[in-house]
Amino acid sequence: MKLYDTPLAPNPRRVRWFMAEKGIDDIEIVTLNLMQGEHKTPDYVAKAGLANVPMLELDDGTCITESIAICRYLESRYPEPNLFGRTPEEIAFIEMWTRRAEMLVATPVMIGVRHTHPAMGALEQQVPAIGEHNLTSATRALKVLDRRLAESEWLAGDRLTIADIVAFVGIDFGRMIKFKLPEDLPHVARWAEAMRSRPAAQAGMPQRAPA
Amino acid sequence: MKLYDTPLAPNPRRVRWFMAEKGIDDIEIVTLNLMQGEHKTPDYVAKAGLANVPMLELDDGTCITESIAICRYLESRYPEPNLFGRTPEEIAFIEMWTRRAEMLVATPVMIGVRHTHPAMGALEQQVPAIGEHNLTSATRALKVLDRRLAESEWLAGDRLTIADIVAFVGIDFGRMIKFKLPEDLPHVARWAEAMRSRPAAQAGMPQRAPA
Ligand SMILES: N[C@@H](CCC(=O)N[C@@H](CS)C(=O)NCC(=O)O)C(=O)O
Ligand SMILES: N[C@@H](CCC(=O)N[C@@H](CS)C(=O)NCC(=O)O)C(=O)O
Repeated sequence: MKLYDTPLAPNPRRVRWFMAEKGIDDIEIVTLNLMQGEHKTPDYVAKAGLANVPMLELDDGTCITESIAICRYLESRYPEPNLFGRTPEEIAFIEMWTRRAEMLVATPVMIGVRHTHPAMGALEQQVPAIGEHNLTSATRALKVLDRRLAESEWLAGDRLTIADIVAFVGIDFGRMIKFKLPEDLPHVARWAEAMRSRPAAQAGMPQRAPA
Repeated sequence: MKLYDTPLAPNPRRVRWFMAEKGIDDIEIVTLNLMQGEHKTPDYVAKAGLANVPMLELDDGTCITESIAICRYLESRYPEPNLFGRTPEEIAFIEMWTRRAEMLVATPVMIGVRHTHPAMGALEQQVPAIGEHNLTSATRALKVLDRRLAESEWLAGDRLTIADIVAFVGIDFGRMIKFKLPEDLPHVARWAEAMRSRPAAQAGMPQRAPA
């Protein structure tokens, strides 16, 4: 299998984080430079169907895009530690929190960055009002996470799951535009610190100079 | 089990359509009136976690929101006909098309309706520019579906899956604002007609007066 990846973008980072939690290290990584349009070449688009990363190319040539579809597939091939749930009830509960994390927080932050960060003008026709509306929604939705994390160590229960990865990678991408966690969310703060200190947080990230 | 539902909204309709394809008729339906705020009562929000429909209440009291999480759970309890895939490869491929259908088409149409339909002012602080941007994206994304449907009878292969339900219910919700399929997408037109004529298309929909 081959994973088509790019360093800074949040959707590919979900997959790298997921792989790191599982200790997967036998998948070839092909790094594309989005700013140079390497995801828009006819060859790549013919495989992926869309000019998107991440993409997983299976050994039989089938190509799967969509971060969560890729992670769920990898879960079937590398079952431990379990990150998507074991019973139908647990799978549903984790998918609920993954969708909330994505729709209420991660996607709005990503849209916020795309519509307000100067470098993103290359990928998006920017409308600042869209950026602001989305960042406001994301900030509001963090209260939903805080309420949840007041009663639960991780979003979907007593262990880290794909839901936490999606939420945290989204929030962390906000650093591009200095999106900050509000000060009055102690449970989100506790959880974010736990996420930040996992070794998987570094997977494939550019090294930052020591402060 | 109990499904908390509301007639016109698109996310609950996915679940009703899904249940109709499977012939599920032994789940109690509780109908909420969103315009009267029946999804915002303290009791409901305590169960659902969010003021959202659909919600599935399991027999042990666990409550699951999120349309796709609910459908995937129902698939485990009512496996036939299969709508989420059987092998890990097929499951991934169907999830890829479901996410594309949702993110590229259904969500943008829904956001378009929420930000431009007069009645939606009760649920959303409307920004017309957001509505227009999303409807333009949805229209553009229909070309992706048309390319796919040129080579495949249904979005994810040779049978209807959850991906088709998500795409079509999203598009059909656009009727609220007279969102029309562009004329130059013959494959989408063929598929939309096939969707419209399935009995499941009527599940729980208000009867329309004969033309
Ligand atoms: N829904 C997709 C989103 C993939 C996506 O949008 N990837 C971005 C990078 S985070 C991309 O490829 N952008 C290329 C572009 O915008 O031209 C997923 O979950 O993987
Ligand atoms: N992502 C959720 C979305 C649920 C949702 O937004 N439902 C709408 C109806 S389609 C709702 O409950 N709206 C209530 C409101 O906006 O106040 C899902 O897939 O079920």
